[in-house]
Amino acid sequence: MTDTVISSARREVIIGFNRPFVIIGERINPTGRKILAAEMLAGDYSRVESDARAQIEAGAHMLDVNAGIPLADEPAILARAIQLVQSITDVPLSIDSSIVAALEAGLAVYKGKALVNSVTGEEERLEQVLPLVKKYGAAVVAISNDETGISEDPDVRFAVAKRIVERAQDHGIPVCDVVVDPLVMPIGAINQAGVQVMRLVRRLRDELKVNTTCGASNVSFGLPNRDGINSAFLTMAIASGMTSAITNPLHPETVKACMGADVMMGHDPDCARWIRKFREAPPPSADGTASRGRREVGARRRV
Amino acid sequence: MTDTVISSARREVIIGFNRPFVIIGERINPTGRKILAAEMLAGDYSRVESDARAQIEAGAHMLDVNAGIPLADEPAILARAIQLVQSITDVPLSIDSSIVAALEAGLAVYKGKALVNSVTGEEERLEQVLPLVKKYGAAVVAISNDETGISEDPDVRFAVAKRIVERAQDHGIPVCDVVVDPLVMPIGAINQAGVQVMRLVRRLRDELKVNTTCGASNVSFGLPNRDGINSAFLTMAIASGMTSAITNPLHPETVKACMGADVMMGHDPDCARWIRKFREAPPPSADGTASRGRREVGARRRV
Repeated sequence: MTDTVISSARREVIIGFNRPFVIIGERINPTGRKILAAEMLAGDYSRVESDARAQIEAGAHMLDVNAGIPLADEPAILARAIQLVQSITDVPLSIDSSIVAALEAGLAVYKGKALVNSVTGEEERLEQVLPLVKKYGAAVVAISNDETGISEDPDVRFAVAKRIVERAQDHGIPVCDVVVDPLVMPIGAINQAGVQVMRLVRRLRDELKVNTTCGASNVSFGLPNRDGINSAFLTMAIASGMTSAITNPLHPETVKACMGADVMMGHDPDCARWIRKFREAPPPSADGTASRGRREVGARRRV
Repeated sequence: MTDTVISSARREVIIGFNRPFVIIGERINPTGRKILAAEMLAGDYSRVESDARAQIEAGAHMLDVNAGIPLADEPAILARAIQLVQSITDVPLSIDSSIVAALEAGLAVYKGKALVNSVTGEEERLEQVLPLVKKYGAAVVAISNDETGISEDPDVRFAVAKRIVERAQDHGIPVCDVVVDPLVMPIGAINQAGVQVMRLVRRLRDELKVNTTCGASNVSFGLPNRDGINSAFLTMAIASGMTSAITNPLHPETVKACMGADVMMGHDPDCARWIRKFREAPPPSADGTASRGRREVGARRRV
């Protein structure tokens, strides 16, 4: 049993084998969001704030913060975004950048124990990121690719993850502070991707004893009804032992799938969180949520 | 790898380890449906017909037919219902009764190879039902309880299933024609029920080499938003190796969960069934389905 403790100044979240699944909200990320990118570049963080509040309201336990804007001063923008988010909420954060200086700027202003997102198995990244993780006493997401790219062979991806975990230990970072991302391939392109990742998650848990995370929505790339595929993936990944995901809590299906999986795994004692969430569902409104409300009332009546 | 072939006069359905999950529609059952019971008793089978059509339209691969009406001539009503359903559709049927004479009456009129639902591990039932299954060349659902009731211990339930499979073999019924129902407990009462049933399904598949089925909705008894729990359960059960379920295909979430799980298991080559189903989603209508329609369009745009 492995617990990864992540914290803000006032709150701890624990990613762990026998605990509820941790949803890390992915929305504060300007990649592919032109308006958000322009606003952050102009020093307007109002959307960062509203995205933070909305994701927590929707069920996120942590938030990922990314400021990847081409040609911008990413370290300064990331640090500012982190300070702002920490000023309005106490959920722990994942500091997300592919630029080492930005990770360091974020870590320098962060209050608590952050999750650094991420390090890969590439030699140069390992030697740059791991010392930072150690210096700030953070935890780190380890992505199982290296100089040769992302292998389609799950055994190779396991070997890369193992190497990162060992290298982290060399730097004084304990196994419990490495959260492995096994990399989820699009199932539309690789039909065996689901079975592969389930087996890989199980091995990472049983053999490496590490917690796991992933960017969940990659699995449905190119398919219609992506929420449906993402929900099936998350439910099965949790059954296989996955303990967190970086995903979009603003999709109600995603949150419901994770909470339902927690119930099925016995990680929601007396189903208390499930009952609280769905007993308090708002009554049918006049807009498009009406049919959903009706169905839930029907479901309660069946009880 | 075990294949259980069920057929009508013109169509085969195969329940198998490396095949799409088989949804057996549960709606043709007067238990708890007073109007349907009264109609069937009065010889009016119009609702049986419409229920049959609606379930197939919604995604059922087989239909369960039950005529359990207190004090009625159940053998005659069940036989009549089966003949009617077979006259309007060619999906294979599961003949469902706790009365042996009704099972026999249903088998006598059934065209094809039926699934008999069910036999338990009770001595008297075994000796009455198994000869019938053999006589008509049918397959049978084996429910893992016996004279001592339903054990909360999954090892005991496994042992009961093993005994039924062995006894079936004594009667000349091959392992591939026994589909075991591991019995799913309400998770609201037994928080470990989900983990237990996943382990049990895995053992039934790996050790007994049998296909499995279940009454899926029992798991959510007493909880709000039952569809959400049922969907999480079915997805996880499929990940553990469950190959069919007797459930309600008129709940779109249930069908979506099973189809999404098929995609994740690699049992929907090129995701062709998923794409066909969700590309052809109807455009938003004026009623409560509008928000759902919009979301799916949005999901397609993301592609």
